[in-house]
Amino acid sequence: MGTSRQWTSLAKFIDTPRMADTASLSGGSLLLAWQLKDKTVLIIGGGDVASGRIESVLVADARVTLIAPSAGLHPLTKQFIEDYPDRITYHDRTFAGPSDLAGVDMVLTAIDDVDKSREICALAREHRIPINVADIPPSCDFYFGSQIRSGPLQIMISTNGQSPKLANLIRKQIERSIPDGAGEAVEKVGVLRSKLRERAPGVGGELGKRRMRWMIDVCTNWEMEDLALLDEDMMAKLLDDGWEKNRVPRLQEVGGAKRRSSTSTPKTANLWLSSAAAFVVGAACTVAVLLTGRR
Amino acid sequence: MGTSRQWTSLAKFIDTPRMADTASLSGGSLLLAWQLKDKTVLIIGGGDVASGRIESVLVADARVTLIAPSAGLHPLTKQFIEDYPDRITYHDRTFAGPSDLAGVDMVLTAIDDVDKSREICALAREHRIPINVADIPPSCDFYFGSQIRSGPLQIMISTNGQSPKLANLIRKQIERSIPDGAGEAVEKVGVLRSKLRERAPGVGGELGKRRMRWMIDVCTNWEMEDLALLDEDMMAKLLDDGWEKNRVPRLQEVGGAKRRSSTSTPKTANLWLSSAAAFVVGAACTVAVLLTGRR
Repeated sequence: MGTSRQWTSLAKFIDTPRMADTASLSGGSLLLAWQLKDKTVLIIGGGDVASGRIESVLVADARVTLIAPSAGLHPLTKQFIEDYPDRITYHDRTFAGPSDLAGVDMVLTAIDDVDKSREICALAREHRIPINVADIPPSCDFYFGSQIRSGPLQIMISTNGQSPKLANLIRKQIERSIPDGAGEAVEKVGVLRSKLRERAPGVGGELGKRRMRWMIDVCTNWEMEDLALLDEDMMAKLLDDGWEKNRVPRLQEVGGAKRRSSTSTPKTANLWLSSAAAFVVGAACTVAVLLTGRR
Repeated sequence: MGTSRQWTSLAKFIDTPRMADTASLSGGSLLLAWQLKDKTVLIIGGGDVASGRIESVLVADARVTLIAPSAGLHPLTKQFIEDYPDRITYHDRTFAGPSDLAGVDMVLTAIDDVDKSREICALAREHRIPINVADIPPSCDFYFGSQIRSGPLQIMISTNGQSPKLANLIRKQIERSIPDGAGEAVEKVGVLRSKLRERAPGVGGELGKRRMRWMIDVCTNWEMEDLALLDEDMMAKLLDDGWEKNRVPRLQEVGGAKRRSSTSTPKTANLWLSSAAAFVVGAACTVAVLLTGRR
């Protein structure tokens, strides 16, 4: 794929030669997975955009301080405040000044007041706190892209501000193409890795490399929808009969069973159906021609 | 798609109802598109990982200060230093102390010395400069995911550290599924938007909404591979005969022509081929059966 422009892969595990497409090292953003566990995010505003921000930062395990007058709260924002009293500290007022920035690790504002937004941005920059101001690009240290999530699997599509609509269309395409159970597969493999580290602990060295290679073998030998089926018992068997013996057992060997619907994909099923139909039509046409020839 | 877990879409343009999958608002990261245009990124280290960091930050239009002894430079790192003397300031030495952090907006270290890495991290945190230390998660304000890029279109896959291998496999799947020319489509649509803003300037209001709706119509009515074909003349016609008349002309009306290979996708071609083959086999089998019957 790709016509005159090559896809450039910046994979963490580099297993394909990296194309130094030096003519185009420009015009993008630095895509990052920001870590907010036990960090405090200040969200200013309570409308629709703010509710989306709350959801995103809760996913990242942050503590939220929310400042917004109760009068204008979006229903989803109200729901979050009610459902997460231990994770969201809510102040029913507007932004009060520098004291609101104490102990804050990130600021997200989503309010209509442009002057207030710029004022908050200036304060955040003074305090060297990363900030995003909805709809005012120069006041943003970072942007949000179009995103999809399934458990610990998160995918972001960014067009560097060129086309939010195309980002959205591409997101839908990606949603359709990711295998069922991908998110669960990622979660289960994460658990398996932890169990393996417990069973064979130690950082780096030969053991570390062997652990990494075995995990890679499991991920390449098993279908993603089968990885999603892993439970405690299956993982134990996988380690006993697999890791301990330096091999990768099949799903059935560790007590798993394929889902009935997964024996053929819709595409191959369609191919078989249309071929079968064409075979019958070919036979029928031949008979018809021969019968016509006899008369 | 999705079995027991739903895909949650956090789209910038929210056109599908957002599922508040409140049971799982945890265990992820905050995916961001960090803006580095005219910012300075300090990269410490010159090996393979460092060369990947250099590439990523150059894509984001950053200025790079690189600190690494020349003795251990990876070939790609050397190539970047040679090719971008105006964008990379190179210091042939090791990290010297706090003075190296002056004027720096982000720090990325990729060195083997664990103690040195921790020391640099402590300094960066003191100066409130975001930092990533390769392979030492607690010293990271953010992680890098598995990424693909085509021009201004960038896609990141994050597993929140659960499985780099699965992130890689999913990345390859996404690469196969994104239409040809998607990156160019995004770039061309970005240019078209700028031209439209010049032609009908003004922030927000009715005009702003009308511009947004027309751009959405163009993106939904045209195939992505056709958007990729837009040139200056076609864009002018698209605005004259489209925007000015509140409609969206087809590709041919603005002087474009579909690429010959795009009339049928490989999937439909396969379907036709296999059906034709099955038809012939059906006819041949019928003839064979009838001939055998005659003897």
